[in-house]
Amino acid sequence: MKIISGPASKQLGEKIAELLGVEVVPLFFKNHPDGESYVRLEGNVENEEIAVIQTTSPPQDTHLMQLALIADAARRHGAKKISAVVPYLAYARQDRAFLYGEAVSIEVVARILKAAKIDSLITVNVHKEKVLNKFPFPAKSISAIPSLAKFFKQKGFDKAFALAPDKGAMWLAEEARRVLGGEYDYLRKHRDRYSGQISITKKAFDVKGKKVIIFDDVISTGGTIALAAKNMKEAGADNVYAACVHPLLIGNAEKRILEAGVEEIVGTDSIQSHVSKVSLAPLICRELKHQEKKRG
Amino acid sequence: MKIISGPASKQLGEKIAELLGVEVVPLFFKNHPDGESYVRLEGNVENEEIAVIQTTSPPQDTHLMQLALIADAARRHGAKKISAVVPYLAYARQDRAFLYGEAVSIEVVARILKAAKIDSLITVNVHKEKVLNKFPFPAKSISAIPSLAKFFKQKGFDKAFALAPDKGAMWLAEEARRVLGGEYDYLRKHRDRYSGQISITKKAFDVKGKKVIIFDDVISTGGTIALAAKNMKEAGADNVYAACVHPLLIGNAEKRILEAGVEEIVGTDSIQSHVSKVSLAPLICRELKHQEKKRG
Repeated sequence: MKIISGPASKQLGEKIAELLGVEVVPLFFKNHPDGESYVRLEGNVENEEIAVIQTTSPPQDTHLMQLALIADAARRHGAKKISAVVPYLAYARQDRAFLYGEAVSIEVVARILKAAKIDSLITVNVHKEKVLNKFPFPAKSISAIPSLAKFFKQKGFDKAFALAPDKGAMWLAEEARRVLGGEYDYLRKHRDRYSGQISITKKAFDVKGKKVIIFDDVISTGGTIALAAKNMKEAGADNVYAACVHPLLIGNAEKRILEAGVEEIVGTDSIQSHVSKVSLAPLICRELKHQEKKRG
Repeated sequence: MKIISGPASKQLGEKIAELLGVEVVPLFFKNHPDGESYVRLEGNVENEEIAVIQTTSPPQDTHLMQLALIADAARRHGAKKISAVVPYLAYARQDRAFLYGEAVSIEVVARILKAAKIDSLITVNVHKEKVLNKFPFPAKSISAIPSLAKFFKQKGFDKAFALAPDKGAMWLAEEARRVLGGEYDYLRKHRDRYSGQISITKKAFDVKGKKVIIFDDVISTGGTIALAAKNMKEAGADNVYAACVHPLLIGNAEKRILEAGVEEIVGTDSIQSHVSKVSLAPLICRELKHQEKKRG
């Protein structure tokens, strides 16, 4: 196996290659003056199994196109198999037509990856796993929640209260609880499909004097986490922390979250940022090795 | 037939619908806070032939994704046939692997459009027409050069000298000449594949005291046009004009071109800008009608 580190995941890709002890195929990348992406492989991929590491963080469409171009270049130059490792999979929330007239964006993404001649996909904590069943090639989501929980455990957060900011994320909190050994629960959140407005239904939580860690897959504008944090502080939580797999942190998300009383935000390098304190590299390596073994 | 006007070609799409006397399907469009595009059709497309008008000017990848999402929404809600009208087709210059390791970007774009369930494509002055032969569905390029030449002719530019800035564009100048009735020629241009540097081989031109119109498909950074204009001024041309189908006009392209002695830049609404003095709407209408008739 050889690794190609896409422009959106350069550091992560190199870390994965180092851990696996495999070669990184050098990639020349530039933007044309008009903004088109240009890629050129500067190494041999003939008859190789290639893993392309490229997250689809913002600018999502550009990162997706770069991934497609890299896969095309690899296939065209003889790659035998192309696995895409896309830690943050964009457009995953639009997984059905909620309203009349909508597109199903994640299915468009899946078909684009197929069109780019990608053979299989590894992603991390995709919004809903079942969307992957419809992908026209094997696609698997692995969870970084245990890695995030371990990070807190190593800091002495044993038995911290794991909170999911909504019912859909409940299993994330449950997963974290298995590492932390404390309790877990979730908030009843409602999002208006038209306005995007979020509201939370009050509920009693036994968090008095406890450390609470809010676990979510994505932190985008931070509205959900900020609301959850305020809720926990009001319920008497001692300290509130936020852990997420994909720290999108749009605009003033970080400020908003810290102002809501969160002590620290911990994310992974799914999207490289200064809160990327946990690396996905060991997790992804394990999955790549596992899949290689299965193929024999 | 019904028209969907994509966010990148809103005005042009509405003009086309008006000329054809057909309905525009209302499209709700927004960007999510994280930058993902969201589309929702607010009209009925069931059993309809749909023409989606969406150019892929910068940001190319985002405009391409929007087109894919619109096509998905239309197909999902029962559209019988989807024609994409993409006046400026991005990534068309990378039509083969010029260097080892390159992707063939235009083939990736073609496969993405196919993946988006588009049935046919109409584009305008694609960089090289032969790329369309490889498209996995019927794809046609129509030329706006006669429309541009007519614009000048109506301004009294009869017998103006039509110049192509390189050999590849020679037939554009030839096409313009047929309308203008003067002479035409082309410059010998060389572009270094690695550095992108452009040079022109000196050649004698009989342009003394004449009006020269430089015709090109795209004006990007304006380097080629500026060089050609200087060349024409040195050869004794009286006035130099620049006409292009796709006025990308990246950065200070316009300033650069005007400083090289060009009196006026004339483009089409393939990409809406203040030089868009010629509309593609009549041309595209004619082609849409022609194709509809052929299908019977």
